[in-house]
Amino acid sequence: MPHFLNAADAGFEEDFAALLGAKREEAQDVDDAVAAIIADVRERGDQALIELTAKFDRMELSPERMRFTTAEVDDLVAQVSPEDRAALEHAAGRIRGYHARQMPKDESWTDPEGATLGWRWTPVSAAGLYVPGGLASYPSSVLMNAIPAKVAGVERLAITVPTPDGVANPLVLLAARIAGVDEIYRVGGAQAVAALAYGTESIAPVDKITGPGNAYVAAAKRRVFGRVGIDMIAGPSEILVIADADNDPDWIAVDMLSQAEHDESAQAILITDDAGFGEKVTAAVEKRLETLERREIAGASWRDFGAVIVVPDLEMAAQLADRIAPEHLELCVADPEGLSVRIRHAGAIFLGAWTPEAIGDYVGGPNHVLPTARSARFSSGLSVMDFLKRTTLAKMTPEALKAIGPAAERLAIAESLEAHGLSVRARLDRLNEG
Amino acid sequence: MPHFLNAADAGFEEDFAALLGAKREEAQDVDDAVAAIIADVRERGDQALIELTAKFDRMELSPERMRFTTAEVDDLVAQVSPEDRAALEHAAGRIRGYHARQMPKDESWTDPEGATLGWRWTPVSAAGLYVPGGLASYPSSVLMNAIPAKVAGVERLAITVPTPDGVANPLVLLAARIAGVDEIYRVGGAQAVAALAYGTESIAPVDKITGPGNAYVAAAKRRVFGRVGIDMIAGPSEILVIADADNDPDWIAVDMLSQAEHDESAQAILITDDAGFGEKVTAAVEKRLETLERREIAGASWRDFGAVIVVPDLEMAAQLADRIAPEHLELCVADPEGLSVRIRHAGAIFLGAWTPEAIGDYVGGPNHVLPTARSARFSSGLSVMDFLKRTTLAKMTPEALKAIGPAAERLAIAESLEAHGLSVRARLDRLNEG
Repeated sequence: MPHFLNAADAGFEEDFAALLGAKREEAQDVDDAVAAIIADVRERGDQALIELTAKFDRMELSPERMRFTTAEVDDLVAQVSPEDRAALEHAAGRIRGYHARQMPKDESWTDPEGATLGWRWTPVSAAGLYVPGGLASYPSSVLMNAIPAKVAGVERLAITVPTPDGVANPLVLLAARIAGVDEIYRVGGAQAVAALAYGTESIAPVDKITGPGNAYVAAAKRRVFGRVGIDMIAGPSEILVIADADNDPDWIAVDMLSQAEHDESAQAILITDDAGFGEKVTAAVEKRLETLERREIAGASWRDFGAVIVVPDLEMAAQLADRIAPEHLELCVADPEGLSVRIRHAGAIFLGAWTPEAIGDYVGGPNHVLPTARSARFSSGLSVMDFLKRTTLAKMTPEALKAIGPAAERLAIAESLEAHGLSVRARLDRLNEG
Repeated sequence: MPHFLNAADAGFEEDFAALLGAKREEAQDVDDAVAAIIADVRERGDQALIELTAKFDRMELSPERMRFTTAEVDDLVAQVSPEDRAALEHAAGRIRGYHARQMPKDESWTDPEGATLGWRWTPVSAAGLYVPGGLASYPSSVLMNAIPAKVAGVERLAITVPTPDGVANPLVLLAARIAGVDEIYRVGGAQAVAALAYGTESIAPVDKITGPGNAYVAAAKRRVFGRVGIDMIAGPSEILVIADADNDPDWIAVDMLSQAEHDESAQAILITDDAGFGEKVTAAVEKRLETLERREIAGASWRDFGAVIVVPDLEMAAQLADRIAPEHLELCVADPEGLSVRIRHAGAIFLGAWTPEAIGDYVGGPNHVLPTARSARFSSGLSVMDFLKRTTLAKMTPEALKAIGPAAERLAIAESLEAHGLSVRARLDRLNEG
């Protein structure tokens, strides 16, 4: 049974705090193993990749076999059904359209003191996308990571995807092709992250690495951070649904289960202003769990981390939502827009009962890589901004330097940084001579 | 003597690669000590802060003394000269003006398939700024970190600043007051970072921590990352100057020294298309080093990491600049704008000989917290964006769901995520009934 909390109960605050603080994932201590793998790839390059791939993915690689050839990709994507291809292309088009609007603008202006200021955005030159192999090899993740990179203008986009026992997922390759990925490599694990960060004979290094992965991949990303940029380290998925009694309990139940089925550590929470509705949703979840393919996983998530919270009104629901700072937030209420502006901390908001969260996973347009574990308090989902960086620009005229230079010199002296002050003074002296 | 490289020499590529790869800072291994300090603060709160402050800063704290009172700040800032105050206010106004232009806009639109999409930016609720104590306690850093936070709309902004032997820097307090900081605490080191991340009886936790610090502070920020957001971990300062022979060698020399004086690990590089000019700058540096207050530090930086690189033309200078990806880049050439657009990787560019880098450290307007150690390839300086996060928004109508829902369902099935598909199917079935 999931947790059932009622804001009217005496122990509510304590129970809610416990729910917030529940540790859903034990960090696996793989750091030493990962450090050794990275050192090995740095030292021995391709040869290390070949040996590690033989060991972990049970397949023979060679420098020539490292990268998928165009013909190999052609053959694999030909296996995809026209319907699946159409769905991927539909999704890709919508994701591209959404992310194109995120492109920031360069700015330049001259201020009253005569200084010309501004900034310019430029793309990261080369990015690498890690794609997990096996069951969690999701074509939707390829679209969600690769399309923002290409929209941002990344020239060289490489994918690494393990192919255990030599088996590749045709949908992943098709998604990569649709997204415009330039290079696809048959390597995975920490060794793939090391290859992307440091390069080998066959894989040129990149500047930024994104994409999901297991504990080894996450640890490797943390280790190479600084050498390259990385995206966030994602935790287990979460959904918070705020729903009033005017909803179909079964719709809300499947929405909750669509996160619960990801992972036994996933979390689905319902906040409602109607206790009876909360019970109906719970019953609907139990009923769906009887037949769901992934009922073992979804059932464990629901039992261990699921929760129904009854509140006196939607104002309190908004307050609790901000404390949860959910990755995904569905607002199934009469005025979802009105409620949404009272909530500050959420990765993505789905407005109204006709917007199940799964739309956002695939075809809505916004990114499905979103902040987990309450990090929506301070971070955002993946976007084109993750593949851009800003260079600030400043230009002084002699007049501008005369106007603002003395303040710089004064502060430099106050901070005992003499040469800073001298670099301004040398120029001001010339102006005074002139 | 600094490194003297000439692109015409046979060994140039090797020498340049060695210069790029030079390790300027040995990571101090303080991680175990920092882990213990963080655990102590989490467990014992204020009492741990009091004991650690007695040990490291040689001063008695108490829960009541932890935070500066308004009267205490009043007394300290009254010690600041009117000239220094005016310089700080001048700088603050310019920094505020620049960062106000960085505020991104919310967006919302309805697309041809009937989906309403968009995003909304909201500020981090509470941020903490670490300010070093002692010699490196820079009021300019307070302005550069605090102003973007306040421009972004952060409601609660706390500063921690150690006051060794009880001595506080009046300019730091005045900068905090001018920037609108809400709370100032007399704690420093890893214990201050732990207090900001986890909270104690006297210090409420924050969501984001920024600001420079020593190896302990950097290690603590790495450790609390995930619990809270952090800014980058800054390395030693760097400047690259591209200058032709039409410059005053002394101006270029003091510009180089203004970074070299920060730290023995700082790096100043000149690229010029005139070998004779390179020698003149070297001579001018040596001359300035005879009298510079911080000549020990600046001299060591220049000797160990300084470099003059002679190139055949400015096109090659631009190419090398991109490989260096400098934190600060001065373009002292006839057409600085023309050259700047050929360079993609730089934290901040200073255009023309009248724009010494020190202007950007204090009063130019752009932030002086910038990516070091070649990380300008994939990251940007501090900005209001570091204190904002984006929530994506999506709303389907029944018609929109009919148009795009089937693609989502299809991809969910392809990924073996049945409940994802069912959450769309349940709604499509209702529409088909209706």
